[in-house]
Amino acid sequence: MVETIRWTDEGVVLIDQRRLPLETVYVTCRDYREVAEAIRSMAIRGAPAIGVAAAMGIALGMQQARPPELDVQFEAICETLARTRPTAVNLFWAIDRMKRVYAGVRGRPVEEIRAALVAEALRIKEEDIAVNQAIGRNGCGLIPDGKAVLTHCNAGALATAGYGTALGVIRAAVSAGKKIHVFADETRPFLQGARLTAWELLAEGIPTTLIADSMAGYFMKSGRIGCVIVGADRIAANGDVANKVGTYTLAVLAREHGVPFYVAAPLSTLDLSLPSGEAIPIEQRPAEEVTHCFGVRVAPEGVRVENPAFDVTPHRYVTAIITERGVAWPPFEESLRKLAGGGAL
Amino acid sequence: MVETIRWTDEGVVLIDQRRLPLETVYVTCRDYREVAEAIRSMAIRGAPAIGVAAAMGIALGMQQARPPELDVQFEAICETLARTRPTAVNLFWAIDRMKRVYAGVRGRPVEEIRAALVAEALRIKEEDIAVNQAIGRNGCGLIPDGKAVLTHCNAGALATAGYGTALGVIRAAVSAGKKIHVFADETRPFLQGARLTAWELLAEGIPTTLIADSMAGYFMKSGRIGCVIVGADRIAANGDVANKVGTYTLAVLAREHGVPFYVAAPLSTLDLSLPSGEAIPIEQRPAEEVTHCFGVRVAPEGVRVENPAFDVTPHRYVTAIITERGVAWPPFEESLRKLAGGGAL
Repeated sequence: MVETIRWTDEGVVLIDQRRLPLETVYVTCRDYREVAEAIRSMAIRGAPAIGVAAAMGIALGMQQARPPELDVQFEAICETLARTRPTAVNLFWAIDRMKRVYAGVRGRPVEEIRAALVAEALRIKEEDIAVNQAIGRNGCGLIPDGKAVLTHCNAGALATAGYGTALGVIRAAVSAGKKIHVFADETRPFLQGARLTAWELLAEGIPTTLIADSMAGYFMKSGRIGCVIVGADRIAANGDVANKVGTYTLAVLAREHGVPFYVAAPLSTLDLSLPSGEAIPIEQRPAEEVTHCFGVRVAPEGVRVENPAFDVTPHRYVTAIITERGVAWPPFEESLRKLAGGGAL
Repeated sequence: MVETIRWTDEGVVLIDQRRLPLETVYVTCRDYREVAEAIRSMAIRGAPAIGVAAAMGIALGMQQARPPELDVQFEAICETLARTRPTAVNLFWAIDRMKRVYAGVRGRPVEEIRAALVAEALRIKEEDIAVNQAIGRNGCGLIPDGKAVLTHCNAGALATAGYGTALGVIRAAVSAGKKIHVFADETRPFLQGARLTAWELLAEGIPTTLIADSMAGYFMKSGRIGCVIVGADRIAANGDVANKVGTYTLAVLAREHGVPFYVAAPLSTLDLSLPSGEAIPIEQRPAEEVTHCFGVRVAPEGVRVENPAFDVTPHRYVTAIITERGVAWPPFEESLRKLAGGGAL
């Protein structure tokens, strides 16, 4: 499996996810603005992965910052990275971690500051892989053996530092010997399911069937889907889940068919400052993502488009939320707060 | 507005819907096998339109048939056209009409047989336009004024001989002075919504917003959608509706949000021989429609695909079925049979 993102002496190296699966191209971001642009343009995407990218972007920015006025430069770098994408809270969580580290070393020699920030960015990356493996262990018992699992978008190795959240649970279940067939929604408009999820799972030999998003109802009604599992970009205190647009539709379908609907996400995706999902900002992406498909126009010139990148699934549709510290069950208000506080469930 | 299909001295001329909206290309089918291939390859599609195409294909085939053994040739032509696509019943309905006309003239001079078949094919086409206008009149009162209407696939002028079924109702409502904004699902994998519906409505200045199929839930939850209206490929006696895959998902979403879900279709779409939708054959289309987008590969080589072209929406999700003879309300078993029998509702 390819590495999503890596810190190198030349800069932050990441696989350009816009060109997968047709081409495997690595790009090197040589300053923090290039990292910000990689996040904005979705060369790297997925809530945990953009958290790692933002942290590395800040570390990179400070390698190039020159005294005096490091504080001002640090703030500007953080601000640029924070303005890339609004919905995934992991971005802001990672920036906050970098800010705390900076606060602890500010005033010290610049080399020491730089080293501390690089170390923190690398720690965020390493922790993410370990967190995903823990999510996999915690969730793997929930996946029914011998049935199909439906997933949406890409909550896999490519959406994280490695292993994946929703796909991490699937990986863990497969490793545990369960017979699992994955149905992957292609996930228009950006086609993360077709381009990334199908590619990741195919590479590992996990049986996968690619379907158009509109087919989920058909397969749910067929009785072949044992559960739905997706990632998350932000989870409010009450368990409302923002995730790739189309997730809400799957949740409604799942409830209609009595199919469990699971969300797999690290605790860094929790936003306890929001009582419900209503206040989660939903990013509106460019119209061209809908009117074009891999550069080819598929809609008439001049047509109006709306392109919300995410939707919010109210907690009443969510069966359970799988985190690295355990599985949260309803009422989520309580179970999520307990997990976030470090308490056992 | 372009003409979907036309009978000419050179053959059956139709607009190649696979190339819209990028190019407006007419193809001339010079024998019945070319008409069959145009239906199979979806150069022409939409249940009423393929009924007209099949009728014209039979008429064309018999222009070229030579005595003796006209019966055998007629049967072979009908058989070839019947084997093009399995789900839309209008195809079989049109073939049956042609068979009845043939039965009435068989044994007569070949010129007379040919003229009778051409006349019937033209009648099927003309009737279809009138039927759609009647559907529009009957349905237009159901469309809420000042709200958005969500539609899926293309049940427009291009899916019929002209005017359209679901889009015919929208056209009628707009003509009646209602303020209507259309949300058009792009309708992967074949993108009939992006390529055909958006194009048709844009050409007439009816405000239209194109969205990815997975966004329907988001907009339904936003409260902006006043009703859903779709066409149909086959309606069973109990009101179960086969239509473009994704329709069922919209129906589930509509009920979840208390939004009316209307089906607009001519009575030729009714299949009273089927007690429920379970026995409706669902066409499985080639994997390339999902793995490619306008000829561009969007999924990894070797990925497994399922591509059901239709799904069945159980009647309990259907608010009403709008036909040329009136609106059928639940219980559909009764209301549809009454309409089909010619009784007033």
